Amino acid sequence: MTFWKFFFNYKQTTKLKKQTKDGTTNVFVKKVEKSNIYMSTCKKINLEELEKLCDSVGWVRRPLKKVKFALENSFLTISVFQIENKYKRLIGFARVTSDGSFNATIWDVVIHPDFQGNGLGTILMNQVIKKLREYDISTITLFADPQVVKFYQHIGFIVDPDSVKGMFWYPT
Amino acid sequence: MTFWKFFFNYKQTTKLKKQTKDGTTNVFVKKVEKSNIYMSTCKKINLEELEKLCDSVGWVRRPLKKVKFALENSFLTISVFQIENKYKRLIGFARVTSDGSFNATIWDVVIHPDFQGNGLGTILMNQVIKKLREYDISTITLFADPQVVKFYQHIGFIVDPDSVKGMFWYPT
Repeated sequence: MTFWKFFFNYKQTTKLKKQTKDGTTNVFVKKVEKSNIYMSTCKKINLEELEKLCDSVGWVRRPLKKVKFALENSFLTISVFQIENKYKRLIGFARVTSDGSFNATIWDVVIHPDFQGNGLGTILMNQVIKKLREYDISTITLFADPQVVKFYQHIGFIVDPDSVKGMFWYPT
Repeated sequence: MTFWKFFFNYKQTTKLKKQTKDGTTNVFVKKVEKSNIYMSTCKKINLEELEKLCDSVGWVRRPLKKVKFALENSFLTISVFQIENKYKRLIGFARVTSDGSFNATIWDVVIHPDFQGNGLGTILMNQVIKKLREYDISTITLFADPQVVKFYQHIGFIVDPDSVKGMFWYPT
């Protein structure tokens, strides 16, 4: 697995609040800031930082030892960092299990809420697909919660193609 | 990944045809034969034999080089052999991609048509689940063609739990 970097300018739009004459608060101004966004497939990931990122979207905390093992056994991990004033902040993540040949499954796709709604998730997913296509992997799969199905459809994912059904087994 | 063996007696039932007095042929007798069935997680798999097994259920032939790479990068493979008169025949197979920690996806589940309908697929799947549970993996997934959804439901798999959807991306 190669190491790679990807820099680009990212426009962060921030909604500003302003109080009107009648006392109500309305959101009506957008502040646009630029910062450098960096992506990496390096697996040396700060586990605490990753779990904090997962916290930010409300995921359940997981034992760090298991997270470490999962990352080591993932075929691909992509971390997204914001770099500002030499400070590196983990703001996005995705990882993949795969046979490196035919099939891949994408897990744990997360973008920090501060950076959502600006296309960063789409860029991350397209990078995941690009990396997997370098291995000529043609069946790229994932399991999507109902609220993100449209997001993945926008990227080109299809729900239940040819009536193939995603199925889960859980311990009882 | 440990190597393991599993022997048991397997009752192979064969439907026999008999001609009735009016000239029609009816299937009405079952012949029961016993043979030793052997399961192994060893990844040293005869690729030609595996592809022949896949041929037997009508799957499209795949480049052996890619198959070899896929097996090497699979987290778990289980091969099912019939042993008769010292002759070892590959009659079943399943493999898994996984992070070894949280999630696993089962691919390429196949039982030779000569051995279908006798519960061997269920035994194979239960062995796959058992091995994954040894790693405390709790999310075991697969993608099922419509005609095998009921088979997997019988084993305990659930379609779209909490409306989570299986999604696929294919190259255009």
